[in-house]
Amino acid sequence: MIKSLNQLIEAFRKLPGIGQKQAERFAFYILRSSENDVKNFLSSVIEAKKNIKICPVCCSYCEKMPCEICSDDQRDKRTICVVENYTDLLAIERTGKYKGLYHVLLGVISPLDGIHQDNLSIKIFMKRLKGINEALIATNPTVEGDATAIYLAKILQPYNVKVTRLAKGIPSGGNIEYADEITLVNALDGRKEI
Amino acid sequence: MIKSLNQLIEAFRKLPGIGQKQAERFAFYILRSSENDVKNFLSSVIEAKKNIKICPVCCSYCEKMPCEICSDDQRDKRTICVVENYTDLLAIERTGKYKGLYHVLLGVISPLDGIHQDNLSIKIFMKRLKGINEALIATNPTVEGDATAIYLAKILQPYNVKVTRLAKGIPSGGNIEYADEITLVNALDGRKEI
Repeated sequence: MIKSLNQLIEAFRKLPGIGQKQAERFAFYILRSSENDVKNFLSSVIEAKKNIKICPVCCSYCEKMPCEICSDDQRDKRTICVVENYTDLLAIERTGKYKGLYHVLLGVISPLDGIHQDNLSIKIFMKRLKGINEALIATNPTVEGDATAIYLAKILQPYNVKVTRLAKGIPSGGNIEYADEITLVNALDGRKEI
Repeated sequence: MIKSLNQLIEAFRKLPGIGQKQAERFAFYILRSSENDVKNFLSSVIEAKKNIKICPVCCSYCEKMPCEICSDDQRDKRTICVVENYTDLLAIERTGKYKGLYHVLLGVISPLDGIHQDNLSIKIFMKRLKGINEALIATNPTVEGDATAIYLAKILQPYNVKVTRLAKGIPSGGNIEYADEITLVNALDGRKEI
């Protein structure tokens, strides 16, 4: 086997969710690609790694610090939406419905994975509470996400901040017949007058 | 959305079989990785692209030309095994059973995909026939692989070369009950005394 081909395959195997066969496909794709395409690929990685920083205010990714949302005067500075990861922030931004600020936790409390409250950006979040009316905890509705939300609600108690959580229920386009019991219980508990 | 993050995701989307979500996972993996890990990843790509050439004799990948197999005096120079791709060569090499030379076609005749005989390395192959006793056509047992094998057998007819093909039948560990009809017909046709 060719040494530098082996190393290339090993490099691709480190990408999340990639096994031997797919890493080989990526490697042969690189070998087949033109010099120019490979140069573009490399410079995308180099540029992203060089330019993208973590916003010191909200811990989101950004190119200039503080990030676009934190430095946007049009946003409602009295509401902070707390998300697990940057991708959750993007999903909420895509709705166009939320106009407040964000805080990215950079994960979720998960003692089994060795992730405790100190591994997250909670301390940075606690320094932002001045002038905040509402903290919307938008962690995922999983065991860890719920536990993190409860932990945040607890440590926010001494402060004069309304703590809210995204509504749980049947997803739009979903099917009551196939909904699991916890989802249905949540939907019943959260029922609204129409 | 951050421009250089977008470009990184786009770069990963070009890898074969990768959609938006997985490209995002790769991009965030790169952002989370240490400077050193990213440097190693980049240098694997650069080294592979710089060092790996196509062997001018057999069209396989190699670091020095001609490739290790072509320049190995221990190999049987009278037999050439014709494969579609380098990965097929590796699969046959792993058996340790075959001691001859190889020729990599760099694909298979497939008019629907616009791949004709001139797009493959058949001309280079035809120049290697001097001193060859046997051409073992190891293209895949697909419609295109079989058509390519028949084409090669036809153009090899004027030469004094025995043209063979890998046996078709039930794969080892396979199940007769679940074998498709063509596989079973091939297994019956190729039955051997024990």
